[in-house]
Amino acid sequence: MTTEELIAQILKKKSFLCVGLDTDIDKIPPHLLNEEDPIFSFNKAIIDATQHLCVGYKPNIAFYEAYGLKGWRALERTIRYLNDNYPEQFTIADAKRGDIGNTSTRYAKAFFENLAFDSVTIAPYMGRDSVEPFLAFKNKHTILLALTSNTGAFDFQTKMMDGREFYKEVLEVSKTYENAENLMYVVGATKAEYLAEIRQIVPDHFLLVPGVGAQGGDLHEVCKYGMNKNIGLLVNSSRGIIYASTGRDFAEKAAEKAAEIQVKMREELGKL
Amino acid sequence: MTTEELIAQILKKKSFLCVGLDTDIDKIPPHLLNEEDPIFSFNKAIIDATQHLCVGYKPNIAFYEAYGLKGWRALERTIRYLNDNYPEQFTIADAKRGDIGNTSTRYAKAFFENLAFDSVTIAPYMGRDSVEPFLAFKNKHTILLALTSNTGAFDFQTKMMDGREFYKEVLEVSKTYENAENLMYVVGATKAEYLAEIRQIVPDHFLLVPGVGAQGGDLHEVCKYGMNKNIGLLVNSSRGIIYASTGRDFAEKAAEKAAEIQVKMREELGKL
Repeated sequence: MTTEELIAQILKKKSFLCVGLDTDIDKIPPHLLNEEDPIFSFNKAIIDATQHLCVGYKPNIAFYEAYGLKGWRALERTIRYLNDNYPEQFTIADAKRGDIGNTSTRYAKAFFENLAFDSVTIAPYMGRDSVEPFLAFKNKHTILLALTSNTGAFDFQTKMMDGREFYKEVLEVSKTYENAENLMYVVGATKAEYLAEIRQIVPDHFLLVPGVGAQGGDLHEVCKYGMNKNIGLLVNSSRGIIYASTGRDFAEKAAEKAAEIQVKMREELGKL
Repeated sequence: MTTEELIAQILKKKSFLCVGLDTDIDKIPPHLLNEEDPIFSFNKAIIDATQHLCVGYKPNIAFYEAYGLKGWRALERTIRYLNDNYPEQFTIADAKRGDIGNTSTRYAKAFFENLAFDSVTIAPYMGRDSVEPFLAFKNKHTILLALTSNTGAFDFQTKMMDGREFYKEVLEVSKTYENAENLMYVVGATKAEYLAEIRQIVPDHFLLVPGVGAQGGDLHEVCKYGMNKNIGLLVNSSRGIIYASTGRDFAEKAAEKAAEIQVKMREELGKL
């Protein structure tokens, strides 16, 4: 998917919501456990109920790897279901991968070709040759971790490197990578006050913002400091939406929670 | 496996070699492609031929993920084969994972419980709460990326943070993590001259050293600067061993290459 297509979807749906499919078999409604593939059944129901309210879905790969073959099969079925039925959705493999060049190429093929995700999240620690193999894929997007939503972010990301905070160094250096126009960045909603300075470094790139909802981030603050003329934001919510109910009404309740966020997003988009 | 058991294996075999199972279906001997599971067949033959010369095996997970379900199945069969037949081998899931706390717990369960690896490689970018969920597993080892073997390492790892190189900051900060005694560190053999300073910060921890062989690192230099009184080194070689031949003699040739390294290691251990 091109960035222009993503922007068109946001304007059409008046939403820049991404739904995180962090599907945990211990938290899904018990009646689904009798299904042949409970994880996929849950995801399918959530997707069907929320797809008109959001522009993207983000499975966190850890939740699938944790179940081995069974989990990997559910992930494959989920991304295939999305691509077959809702190709207008922007899909994110939240994998936080990164390795030496020839190995990163393997991960890129896994997520961009085999699974056919639109994007993948990448950790920047290993530098240029760990990121560029992902950037080489046309119309695919590499979402680099910049400032994450967790408390551990303060261990290194906000410390000074070369006269500026490390996450800013990551932003600056990554702009010099080949095909840097295919970059997006992860910035946690729990650190919304940082967004103004981040926008000075990367005014045009999309930001993927997790942490609204269960982790405590505030949507209005995120928009105030992070939105650009092309919106430039994908705001993710996982637990707050997908676990709104553990009853038979779980998909309906998830849609209600997604709709609550979408209404606020419509308001924010109206200010543009 | 405990660290003491690993040291005992090294002393018994006079080897601290780890064989990297970066199995690429385009590089394995063509006659294996008729097998039901060529990746596993290749791994099994390599393991059987080299196990007396090495103390560990390190599948890089990217090579398995690249083949989707088929790859994941081959990975499961490989680690099960190792644990069933050679439980004395130290197994490393080279995954370079790392995510917020509750998600890292998922990855830890995937690799330590479901797949039953002895250790997993982790990227430090997200800090304490992304690493400690791995450290919480008793007799399992968390191998943190410190100074990697690729050129991209110079993008960030060697830049100054808080008055010292970033990779040193990673070493220092990680020593304060809960259960830090379960840490090991990745230090590329291509940067052997850094090992002396690294040993000043982490004198006792094991170092996993990739980059000997195909990537150009020198074993003697690595030992000179990196060895401690308990050896403290696991040196990995992947391509140089497993792709020594593409003929029907591939396993035999792999064993020859492994033996060449083991002879040098025996010499180095003799100097202790």
